[in-house]
Amino acid sequence: MPELRKDPVAGEWVIIGTERPRRPEDFRSAPVPRQPGPCILCGGNESETPPEVLAYRAGDGAPNGAGWRVRVVPSKFPTLRIEGDLERRGHGLYDLMNGVGAHELVVESPRHDDSLAALPLAVVEDVVHAFQERMLDLRRDTRFRSIVVYKPGDGGGGPPFDHPHSQILATPTPPPDLQRELVQARAYHEYRERCLLCDILQQETDEGQRLVVESEHVLGFVPFAARTPFETWLVPRRHLAAYEDVTAAERRDLARTLATVVQRMHVLLPQAPVGFVLHSAPFGDGDAAFFHWHLEVTAHVTALASHGIESGFPTNPLLPEDAARFLRDSAA
Amino acid sequence: MPELRKDPVAGEWVIIGTERPRRPEDFRSAPVPRQPGPCILCGGNESETPPEVLAYRAGDGAPNGAGWRVRVVPSKFPTLRIEGDLERRGHGLYDLMNGVGAHELVVESPRHDDSLAALPLAVVEDVVHAFQERMLDLRRDTRFRSIVVYKPGDGGGGPPFDHPHSQILATPTPPPDLQRELVQARAYHEYRERCLLCDILQQETDEGQRLVVESEHVLGFVPFAARTPFETWLVPRRHLAAYEDVTAAERRDLARTLATVVQRMHVLLPQAPVGFVLHSAPFGDGDAAFFHWHLEVTAHVTALASHGIESGFPTNPLLPEDAARFLRDSAA
Repeated sequence: MPELRKDPVAGEWVIIGTERPRRPEDFRSAPVPRQPGPCILCGGNESETPPEVLAYRAGDGAPNGAGWRVRVVPSKFPTLRIEGDLERRGHGLYDLMNGVGAHELVVESPRHDDSLAALPLAVVEDVVHAFQERMLDLRRDTRFRSIVVYKPGDGGGGPPFDHPHSQILATPTPPPDLQRELVQARAYHEYRERCLLCDILQQETDEGQRLVVESEHVLGFVPFAARTPFETWLVPRRHLAAYEDVTAAERRDLARTLATVVQRMHVLLPQAPVGFVLHSAPFGDGDAAFFHWHLEVTAHVTALASHGIESGFPTNPLLPEDAARFLRDSAA
Repeated sequence: MPELRKDPVAGEWVIIGTERPRRPEDFRSAPVPRQPGPCILCGGNESETPPEVLAYRAGDGAPNGAGWRVRVVPSKFPTLRIEGDLERRGHGLYDLMNGVGAHELVVESPRHDDSLAALPLAVVEDVVHAFQERMLDLRRDTRFRSIVVYKPGDGGGGPPFDHPHSQILATPTPPPDLQRELVQARAYHEYRERCLLCDILQQETDEGQRLVVESEHVLGFVPFAARTPFETWLVPRRHLAAYEDVTAAERRDLARTLATVVQRMHVLLPQAPVGFVLHSAPFGDGDAAFFHWHLEVTAHVTALASHGIESGFPTNPLLPEDAARFLRDSAA
């Protein structure tokens, strides 16, 4: 059973994998090169994954058969385990609990060499619809407190294949990155009695210089204090804490703006993997006045951009206003 | 002038480089390969760096000449600028200040192909002594609030050379990683009226299973909730908030245990760069009962270990107790 251990010095939970014994040799190899297909996520290999929990098919294809556009399966190598109780406990001054959670893969295409940027818009809509449907299902499990949906941009550490996919992680406590946002958003709301991201939307619209993409329901901009050179956030114009409560129109706009941003990043940075993370209110805070769901898109550029990892001071060598201009100007 | 901008969503300061205009092409290149020497930090090239601020030489060699063992120079490509006032200000709902700070390089050897693990112990003592001397000097500048000393393990984003060196960054606000530790340490001390790291030292000594190296003044162990597979912390046994107040005996023990840990990591993981960060109390908290200086050593392993970057949930695939055993067993 994996464990969740709390780092008392930073005050943050860490997932500790304990399932497979590891030796130092396991950590010696170079980064895994891009794997050619076909892989277990490819269309036709449905029997090689755990049974699907959701799929969109044309017509009336049978579950776990071919013919799907987007398919969600539990991870074969889950970071957390779906079985068991939380068993929160102490160990001397330390705190830990069982590594209970759900870890699923959203397979974005049956084709191994596809990419999010190349998918038809209708399929990107399926992808973000799958996020919503899985969150609505997983939040019924009372052991879980939070879900993040993310797309690993670099293939590192993930499953040993490069088939286009995103991941869903349901956890008994929010990830530290989200936890920090919750603390700040709550403090801002207590002080000003307004939502922080609603105020940011207003200022970004007024200033305009960090805007990347605009649509009826979603605004895309480079954040004022972006940590990485081309970081772009997609934020719904309507205040809504939990992503799973979006309307179909908001979902379509998210798909459209996400596809636009990913395509533009690929134009500017042809070699850089593009990833994202979706931050939504923890369950129980779904009607929160202080939190506002959003999606953070990151281009994984290596050169010039890994400053700050060791010093602990994030350092971005590109002015956010310049990044936004480059992303606007790269529109096809 | 670089800027410090506060990310209101995460509540953390980010350094935004504004000095050199950047184009998307600047971020396209692959990671910089290891650069062969000689470079501007090599012995004999003293005139190519800014004038030294500290050096240890045998005999009575002249400043900025040859014959040094360890030499400290301002960075030629500083992240922050030493000139100017802070000018804290608001911009709508955002907060920013000028990017004022000091950025120095501690050159650990005149030889380009040297490494911290290969240095004679007396030179490692010079290195950690240089950290102390520079901190004592820099804290007299009232614009600075905090100093971190760190060794970038990966060469990424740092100066375009691989000469063995560590870096010193003095900043008007603590880096977010240190800020989180300050908040937690203060909360623990308020609740228990004891120092968190003093309590951790006690529990680690009692349990023993995460210990890596022991000496009279410093204990080395893998933290209970380590974020990366072989992370090891070096903590002084005596409660002391600020590193610059260490005794010569503590400094020597830090040098000895640091050399031991780095050497063992190189045995286990021959290809992995090893880095570290030194966390010390901000100026003004030098006598703090709640904070306890320490040095965090990280081996930059790529395979299997980059999980958690996108999800925001740090994920360590190696049990800390196993990591400590591997590091103990690798003793020469």
